[in-house]
Amino acid sequence: MNQPFISLDWGTSNLRATLVSAQGWIVGSRSAEGGVMAVKDGQFLQSFNSLCSDWIADHSCPIIASGMIGSRQGWVEAPYVDCPATPASVARSLTSFPLSDRVTMHIIPGLRCGAGTRMYDVMRGEETQIWGADVDPDTICVLPGTHSKWALVGEQSRIRKFATYMTGELYGLLTKHGILGRLMQFGASDHEAFVAGAQLGLDDQSQATHVIFAARTAGLMDEVPPAGLPDYLSGILIGLEVKSARERERIASAAEKPVTLIGDDSLCQRYETVLRLAGFQSVRAGEGATVRGHIRIATEAGIMERASA
Amino acid sequence: MNQPFISLDWGTSNLRATLVSAQGWIVGSRSAEGGVMAVKDGQFLQSFNSLCSDWIADHSCPIIASGMIGSRQGWVEAPYVDCPATPASVARSLTSFPLSDRVTMHIIPGLRCGAGTRMYDVMRGEETQIWGADVDPDTICVLPGTHSKWALVGEQSRIRKFATYMTGELYGLLTKHGILGRLMQFGASDHEAFVAGAQLGLDDQSQATHVIFAARTAGLMDEVPPAGLPDYLSGILIGLEVKSARERERIASAAEKPVTLIGDDSLCQRYETVLRLAGFQSVRAGEGATVRGHIRIATEAGIMERASA
Repeated sequence: MNQPFISLDWGTSNLRATLVSAQGWIVGSRSAEGGVMAVKDGQFLQSFNSLCSDWIADHSCPIIASGMIGSRQGWVEAPYVDCPATPASVARSLTSFPLSDRVTMHIIPGLRCGAGTRMYDVMRGEETQIWGADVDPDTICVLPGTHSKWALVGEQSRIRKFATYMTGELYGLLTKHGILGRLMQFGASDHEAFVAGAQLGLDDQSQATHVIFAARTAGLMDEVPPAGLPDYLSGILIGLEVKSARERERIASAAEKPVTLIGDDSLCQRYETVLRLAGFQSVRAGEGATVRGHIRIATEAGIMERASA
Repeated sequence: MNQPFISLDWGTSNLRATLVSAQGWIVGSRSAEGGVMAVKDGQFLQSFNSLCSDWIADHSCPIIASGMIGSRQGWVEAPYVDCPATPASVARSLTSFPLSDRVTMHIIPGLRCGAGTRMYDVMRGEETQIWGADVDPDTICVLPGTHSKWALVGEQSRIRKFATYMTGELYGLLTKHGILGRLMQFGASDHEAFVAGAQLGLDDQSQATHVIFAARTAGLMDEVPPAGLPDYLSGILIGLEVKSARERERIASAAEKPVTLIGDDSLCQRYETVLRLAGFQSVRAGEGATVRGHIRIATEAGIMERASA
């Protein structure tokens, strides 16, 4: 008897569900805006059912979920697993609970690193994408976003360490709520302004909280037009991130190999530009990294073997 | 005939008016929350009159104003003067216009530096405070705030160059609108958390957009209690600023002398702590630097001489 499973990519602002066959084929996928932050009063089961109840009725299959759904604000907290971590080690640490007699929910833990150093770092969901991208040993994976992650992946897909950069969140805060946004005109793209900002961020990376002020002064002095200022700031912030990440010791040691970019197409394009300016080569991971990561962890956890037994 | 003048410290969120005698004594002072951002439809004259009309009726005296009132969003734009700048050079570049037959308004220009470098920087109002503080040659003045300024002051109070750090604005954005604020409990102070944050910011200054994420992970890992997280983040941001400013070439060259702190008492205390951690000595400027700066510029401009003629 073949039995599929349901893959849930359940982040802060979105929920994406994919029905995967026992052979690892994608049978169907759906998404909803019911991210973790949109779920009121812990009504996670209801959110899940409203998207997937027919799949459950048809298949009574297990579910594997990753992302903020396993955070303290999520459905059930899935405690962090310390780096170095592999699909196998995480598969042994799933947080599993029954939704019914026949249906079990498995939440993939997030990863933690930095114990004993100056600061901890954490990720939830990106580990699954990295494993789905199935990169060569000693690769740096970059996952641009609200909280960008730079991860160093070793042998056997071991995530050795990683660092978070609050690039996307800073961009959002500074443009939506801050003084920098007041001179800006949104909606256009300006590649030249983006590159100029990126070069400034790369050159002056050790002056981060100073150099972002350039997105005001370049506007005041008419060096960058209002419609170019959003991209100018975006360039500065990504430049700061890329140069900072490049200077981290472990990350720099693998810098001769191409970096693997995992994420949204337009964001990856921005990072490609800045990585090139900084002297990094890059390649893109294929689409569907999250589902492939779920398949990999489900296999390691014996969920797919059990399903096809 | 003795004639006083009115000193206006008119910033983004506050307006402070001081009546100064021709001998330079403070006769009275008042303030209102009618900062530049609170004035609707260019009603600056009305805002001014509602605070000072009796003084004008009694004295018909000139007015000297500094701060954002001279910005593009202010009453009349007072074009920037380039560094190096002195009270004398600025006194020659006042933007003056009549409010009536007998009353003239003089707006002090802001300063600009960085022409020909990677970025311009600007200040409006802080130049007046620096001149009011009347520091020794080759002193670094630090003016903590929403947009902190670090200025290098040479002979004859010449402001040679300066740099802005968006420390206060970042703190506000990250705590009020960002994910870091979600784990925080506000209202308490936690000196230990502040010092720990400052040390992290000082140590890891070249990783600014990464290290601020510690204000999330330290909360998640229960290293800092929720009530300590605001001060932890404040420490990180001030630590980043102090270390960055210290590394700027011209600023570092004067680092053996005490830094002069100009500003709000509680903010200056925070900076004293972090400056000490970073190996800087500091002293405080006396109260009333803005009014003393206005007196100095009024004297250079001949406004006080004319008044006492």
